[in-house]
Amino acid sequence: MKILVLGTGGTIASARTEMGYKATLGVDEVLQLAGIEKRDGFEVETRDVLNLDSTLLQPEDWEVIGRAVFEAFSEYDGIVITHGTDTLAYTSSALSFILRNPPVPVVLTGSMLPITEPGSDAPRNLRTALTFAQKGFPGIYVAFMDKIMLGTRVSKVHSLGLNAFQSINYPDVAYVKGGELLIRHRPRVFGKGEPEFDPPVDPNVVHLRLTPGLSPEVFLKISEAVDGIVLEGYGAGGIPYRGRDLLSAVSRTASQKPVVMTTQALHGGVDLTKYEVGRRALEAGVIPAYDMTKEATLVKLMWALGHTKEVENVRRIMTTNIAGELSIEKERLG
Amino acid sequence: MKILVLGTGGTIASARTEMGYKATLGVDEVLQLAGIEKRDGFEVETRDVLNLDSTLLQPEDWEVIGRAVFEAFSEYDGIVITHGTDTLAYTSSALSFILRNPPVPVVLTGSMLPITEPGSDAPRNLRTALTFAQKGFPGIYVAFMDKIMLGTRVSKVHSLGLNAFQSINYPDVAYVKGGELLIRHRPRVFGKGEPEFDPPVDPNVVHLRLTPGLSPEVFLKISEAVDGIVLEGYGAGGIPYRGRDLLSAVSRTASQKPVVMTTQALHGGVDLTKYEVGRRALEAGVIPAYDMTKEATLVKLMWALGHTKEVENVRRIMTTNIAGELSIEKERLG
Repeated sequence: MKILVLGTGGTIASARTEMGYKATLGVDEVLQLAGIEKRDGFEVETRDVLNLDSTLLQPEDWEVIGRAVFEAFSEYDGIVITHGTDTLAYTSSALSFILRNPPVPVVLTGSMLPITEPGSDAPRNLRTALTFAQKGFPGIYVAFMDKIMLGTRVSKVHSLGLNAFQSINYPDVAYVKGGELLIRHRPRVFGKGEPEFDPPVDPNVVHLRLTPGLSPEVFLKISEAVDGIVLEGYGAGGIPYRGRDLLSAVSRTASQKPVVMTTQALHGGVDLTKYEVGRRALEAGVIPAYDMTKEATLVKLMWALGHTKEVENVRRIMTTNIAGELSIEKERLG
Repeated sequence: MKILVLGTGGTIASARTEMGYKATLGVDEVLQLAGIEKRDGFEVETRDVLNLDSTLLQPEDWEVIGRAVFEAFSEYDGIVITHGTDTLAYTSSALSFILRNPPVPVVLTGSMLPITEPGSDAPRNLRTALTFAQKGFPGIYVAFMDKIMLGTRVSKVHSLGLNAFQSINYPDVAYVKGGELLIRHRPRVFGKGEPEFDPPVDPNVVHLRLTPGLSPEVFLKISEAVDGIVLEGYGAGGIPYRGRDLLSAVSRTASQKPVVMTTQALHGGVDLTKYEVGRRALEAGVIPAYDMTKEATLVKLMWALGHTKEVENVRRIMTTNIAGELSIEKERLG
């Protein structure tokens, strides 16, 4: 059993500097500080891909990390990626789209406290990730605070607490109890063909929160500058048209560029069929994100736009379940 | 004991139409359907202020609702406002800022299921609100699913479930258990002078989510079009500067217009002193939202800009606890 640990930086690899915490340690040092060695019948190899605070990660880095993972598929039984927590959910979503048919488990993890600090959650999260990486479930996962979650379903929900990630609108895959890793369910494997590396993403999108009074003029100005918009609506979703006619501005944009509606509510997703304000949004051409996380929605839109600029093609991709990100299944992409 | 119930519409006042649910019932009908009458030693009077899906509410409506509440202060012992859930947290935040020194309880409530539907949560939420409105705690509150929460602290966290609101980074004020309303803590009363109506808000702000690859050019284009920006960062907060130099764009903007940083994480708030990426954001002039909700942050920025366009004055207002929205207390505004 051979496991590869890829380092990308993050709090888990941070030490104190005069300017606050900064990613500085290599993944070898991180494993050493966590007390993890070759043992228990599995070999660990390491490789540093990046060494950055994940706030600094750009969409181009997803391709770099993805390539390193893709190249390791043939040689390893499982892959662990150490990563900063700030954009971990974006990277886990991105890898889920750009790595088609992963043949082995790929488990992202990190920590809220630097491994150099007493009481750090890094050793515990690393052990959970390494344990699950040996279980043979292909797919992209996140290991955090005794939970294994599907990579397309996680959001960072706490900026301070150690239990910082939640699986949104989808059950945890596994959890640690009494020192044992218990599998809750075996996630459906998406795609059974050969592994593929499918990286093109178009980073020129923006995620705008719908707030009372949002100006149609400002919306149009933004939409002119980007290839696609994620509009984070209220509750079940809908676009206002009273006083300020945002609906007309959205309608004008949506015929030319994808406007995807997600929700400010952490749980429950979007349902544009329930209320009049939602029905009108659907008629205006808005693409519902259904129960996808905000992170998966944004990254999937970038990935879709990396493959096509046609609004109807983007709509088909966005509303199709590619990697477990969506509960409403229409059809598998060919 | 005289209680006024002000109706503004929302799901609680909705009935089914061909275009989905639509707010149609007056507040008198809502109370009647909920089985609430003058009884138990308190009188209920009603008034319809608006009758709208709260997705349609605009900042100008906060003044209309606020004025109706302000005018009722002298005549009633408590005020209940029925409201749609989608922008309820915005309105409860707005009323908290524009109604200074409220002398009686003002309790917003609503429901996830129309009162016309079987199993609706409307009667239960109305009873909780009416009960708390008689308790004499001055301030702006939200009653939902057996909880009383401070108006500046609530967020809608579920688009479908009945337990749709949470008090963020602050304990619930009261809760219902076994049919009894139990007070958890008596919130500090903010301001003890005469009630004041202080409505000016500047709606020309935008709330943008920081996402990997966010273009500095797009950020500058947006910032030119508005008077202030809420930038929803990752985790503890920070601005990227690698590859795409968003930090410079933010720095340029922040010297002229307020750029307030909040966080994508539902819990925990912003701390820009912890990481290098945060320290640099502080140096660039970013105003931290600390542990305010996204809703309170946006509305408070509008309210601050309604009073001053000076960045340093806005900063002082944003980082001062006005109505319980902020745990980090610098000083009370005069």
